[in-house]
Amino acid sequence: MKIIVATRNPGKLREIRLGLEGLAVELLSLADFPAAPEVEEDGDSFAANAVKKARALCADTGIPALADDSGLEVDALQGAPGIRSARFAGEGATDAENNAKLLSLLHGVRPEKRTARFRCVIALAWPDGRVDTVEGIVEGRILEVPRGDQGFGYDPLFYSSELNASFAEVVTEVKLRASHRGKALARIRQILQFDVKRPEGSGT
Amino acid sequence: MKIIVATRNPGKLREIRLGLEGLAVELLSLADFPAAPEVEEDGDSFAANAVKKARALCADTGIPALADDSGLEVDALQGAPGIRSARFAGEGATDAENNAKLLSLLHGVRPEKRTARFRCVIALAWPDGRVDTVEGIVEGRILEVPRGDQGFGYDPLFYSSELNASFAEVVTEVKLRASHRGKALARIRQILQFDVKRPEGSGT
Repeated sequence: MKIIVATRNPGKLREIRLGLEGLAVELLSLADFPAAPEVEEDGDSFAANAVKKARALCADTGIPALADDSGLEVDALQGAPGIRSARFAGEGATDAENNAKLLSLLHGVRPEKRTARFRCVIALAWPDGRVDTVEGIVEGRILEVPRGDQGFGYDPLFYSSELNASFAEVVTEVKLRASHRGKALARIRQILQFDVKRPEGSGT
Repeated sequence: MKIIVATRNPGKLREIRLGLEGLAVELLSLADFPAAPEVEEDGDSFAANAVKKARALCADTGIPALADDSGLEVDALQGAPGIRSARFAGEGATDAENNAKLLSLLHGVRPEKRTARFRCVIALAWPDGRVDTVEGIVEGRILEVPRGDQGFGYDPLFYSSELNASFAEVVTEVKLRASHRGKALARIRQILQFDVKRPEGSGT
């Protein structure tokens, strides 16, 4: 079975590939479909955006499509940046700019008040019109200085007590064991194992 | 692990119990929570309604909640009754009234034009705020006269070529092998197997 992954983010794509490794699934990416249309992420939730991206790509290519929408929710910022995580410092912002904005907004906030979570919704859209969605979250807190150079996005500022490290201080394999995306991928993996065994389209 | 099922429909509850049998999960029902609030199914899709019901019940009880929203889409009726399946012949309509309305609207439509599908979205809402959704569909056609007295809803009018029978002519165990709800439950089962093994809340 082929599945196309609806992301232009190389970090996400790498994690998705790793999280689904070993399944009898061939993962394609947008690089294989250069003409695939851009989808505006204008939904009001991670789920709405993930479903919109997956549905659009599945409709365009005719093959099952997987999309991830995810972000950081900081309690001291009333859940911001949330669905605006990727463009927190403006459209086209770099990871460094987004991280700098986050640190600046949290300036002077004490460690115990810097609680936050990463949330990830993965949607899987099927050519027959079905959509499955799964969600993973991980609790942590925002560091006062970045740590580590692995990962992407807000990883250098996100401290996981489970890992006793920031998400940028561990290799991807270790991050996925604890991360929001790793947990969502583990669930999608469960669903895909079912579909690989019993393809819906075959009527079996 | 306990899960509460957000349905007052005894037919649905029976199928959900059967579909999740054998999992290390104790299924509770609304009968165990008589004070649980009614939820208005005013969403514009099966998914929206299922998520709304599951979230509300999970928030009310503090335990994971599973909700099903499902219905019949008839091609000759441009997808009706759809999300209005349970109340097609009006609020509080009986199965017999809904079936009669469907037959009446399809009067004179030839068998090959009576194609239809059942669609089922199951949402699972978790106390940590996550929601997983899975979807199952089954293709079939609408009979000209009801057949069988098993099942519920539109089952006597829904002919499955896979089963070579209406959904009301087979016992629940057989219906679940082919049905929209059976397919959705098989996916939820996969997800739950993951969660039973590795409870999200435990941080493992």
